[in-house]
Amino acid sequence: MPTPPTPVSAEVPRGGRPPKAPKLTPAIAEARSAVRVVLGSWCDDLAGEGASADVLVGLSGGADSLALALATAFEAHQLGLRAGAVIVDHGLQEGSEAVAANAAAKAREFGLHPVLIRRVVVGAEGGPEAAARDARYAAFAEAVRETGARGVLLGHTLDDQAETVLLGLARGSGAASLSGMAPESVDAVGTRFARPFLGLRRADTEQCCADSHVEFWNDPHNDDPSYRRVRVRAKVLPKLEAEIGPGVAEALARTAEQLREDDEAFQQMIDEFIEEIVEPAEAGIAVSVGALEANPAALRQRIIRYVVRSEFGVSLSRSHTLAVASLVTDWHGQKALHLPGIRVVREGKWIVFSSADSESASE
Amino acid sequence: MPTPPTPVSAEVPRGGRPPKAPKLTPAIAEARSAVRVVLGSWCDDLAGEGASADVLVGLSGGADSLALALATAFEAHQLGLRAGAVIVDHGLQEGSEAVAANAAAKAREFGLHPVLIRRVVVGAEGGPEAAARDARYAAFAEAVRETGARGVLLGHTLDDQAETVLLGLARGSGAASLSGMAPESVDAVGTRFARPFLGLRRADTEQCCADSHVEFWNDPHNDDPSYRRVRVRAKVLPKLEAEIGPGVAEALARTAEQLREDDEAFQQMIDEFIEEIVEPAEAGIAVSVGALEANPAALRQRIIRYVVRSEFGVSLSRSHTLAVASLVTDWHGQKALHLPGIRVVREGKWIVFSSADSESASE
Repeated sequence: MPTPPTPVSAEVPRGGRPPKAPKLTPAIAEARSAVRVVLGSWCDDLAGEGASADVLVGLSGGADSLALALATAFEAHQLGLRAGAVIVDHGLQEGSEAVAANAAAKAREFGLHPVLIRRVVVGAEGGPEAAARDARYAAFAEAVRETGARGVLLGHTLDDQAETVLLGLARGSGAASLSGMAPESVDAVGTRFARPFLGLRRADTEQCCADSHVEFWNDPHNDDPSYRRVRVRAKVLPKLEAEIGPGVAEALARTAEQLREDDEAFQQMIDEFIEEIVEPAEAGIAVSVGALEANPAALRQRIIRYVVRSEFGVSLSRSHTLAVASLVTDWHGQKALHLPGIRVVREGKWIVFSSADSESASE
Repeated sequence: MPTPPTPVSAEVPRGGRPPKAPKLTPAIAEARSAVRVVLGSWCDDLAGEGASADVLVGLSGGADSLALALATAFEAHQLGLRAGAVIVDHGLQEGSEAVAANAAAKAREFGLHPVLIRRVVVGAEGGPEAAARDARYAAFAEAVRETGARGVLLGHTLDDQAETVLLGLARGSGAASLSGMAPESVDAVGTRFARPFLGLRRADTEQCCADSHVEFWNDPHNDDPSYRRVRVRAKVLPKLEAEIGPGVAEALARTAEQLREDDEAFQQMIDEFIEEIVEPAEAGIAVSVGALEANPAALRQRIIRYVVRSEFGVSLSRSHTLAVASLVTDWHGQKALHLPGIRVVREGKWIVFSSADSESASE
């Protein structure tokens, strides 16, 4: 375990008052241990002097985030850190204000400070789930800026991760689509998020609340089958467990972890050599045929997708990616490929990618 | 398309008599095209002079393998190849002999030759499905030896592949467990298998039979819910399609293809450098800490699993693999790890793996 940081000053009470310590049960110990790992790794880069909190817990009042708030309050106190909470009121349900106020009261009771409530306006872009998510994460990012905190801890569990992997199947295929949520991530404006509970079951977090004599809120949205995630949770995963065997949720979560590592490894390799194998081309970019040829299929296809995404903002489907790859692996003088947004042609020892717009302009 | 081989001799009728040609429908065209790709790639390595067939179709009498037999008969004739069939009678069902004889009669009618029926005895090892599979593949391998054929074509479809991916979740996680069936594979005694229909839906093969006015057999085992695969087919996949959205089977099949490529790419990298980073050690093998450290997590963990599997025949779980990796990534003087069958210890700049037996003998 990393060494806890020395409090900046004895006058500034870091960590607040000690939270009421319930009996240490296995569920509570597991939750604390998971939080401790993240807080420990964040210790060496504490929030600055002007900050009002070192970390924030993203709190809904559900079992997972309440268990996270409990564990974070305890561990932050142990490590001499100041932990606060941010509660997002989406304003989508009758009584959401009272739910938020109730969660805030609990957070204060646990010893978290400051406890912020942020009311957001949920748009419609990308569907109700995505819009609510976007509004929530934006509010978290703003709370981090306001408090100067290091980042936000989120209560996503192993069950959420398994659901995310299955939902990924609706979106696409392969390691990138099925790698679920990252244990740590950074948003576009630099806000850091950590998900310490990805290894815990949802039931563990409920147990944690029960062991701590804390009542949690059951979001009625969690029972609304108009949400795809709710259907996956209520119908798909139980069916998988019943017919394939227990342990499917764990296998899906482990799969996400491994596929994320795989994808990161390939990306790391690409980052290391991409500059050596590309050249600027008219209205686009050219990639060396020799380099694409020398790499295994998995890497070749990722190079193609990476170049197209970063140069033209286009996400190639698998079949289009394979069509481009065939200019390398099955070259017999094919004509230019006209794909959505881009034109791809082999010119000698280069695969030349150019914008479809530039083509129509010049032709 | 590759150039078809010149028939060895005009006197030896290669390809047999032309099969009855039904009207060319989309389903038939797709099946033939898929078979043509495989036969084309096998053309440059034809069976020898003494062989009685160039390729064999593994035939059950079900829609998938009958569609395969039809397409193979047609394409083999086009390419001047001799295609036969092998039917395995598992002897597990009342009337299995008649089913086999019926399939054989159809194969002959399609123009396949020779048509072999092999009755096998199904053991019990690994459960009924695995035992039947083992007996079937052994019979295929024997038929290849007898006929001198290049290999066996199997009728597995995209649906079979999607089911295999889901069944993989019961076994484990990550790319290796979820990469499904290979389009081409080689068994322990060198028999080659190809699965040209992995891109076709099961319904396409049924359509193919209907378009060809060929009645197919419905294996009653396909409706027996005591088989896990049947439950996945009848209950899990339809539930996934209904709740997550259509296209899940295709996404699972594409996922299998991509994860297989990913895994192959990592293995190819390991093959390239493994000899440089290992050294023999007492009762085992040592791997360079520096090499493990320099590689991304995905590759580091695969090196560990690969070394343990090839040296000790032990398949490490993810958690054990991570424990070994932590001797590299989180070194703080840990003691030796005692894992099932092996002992792992860091000695300076080496991670030393030795057999658990040798340890108990020497201690």
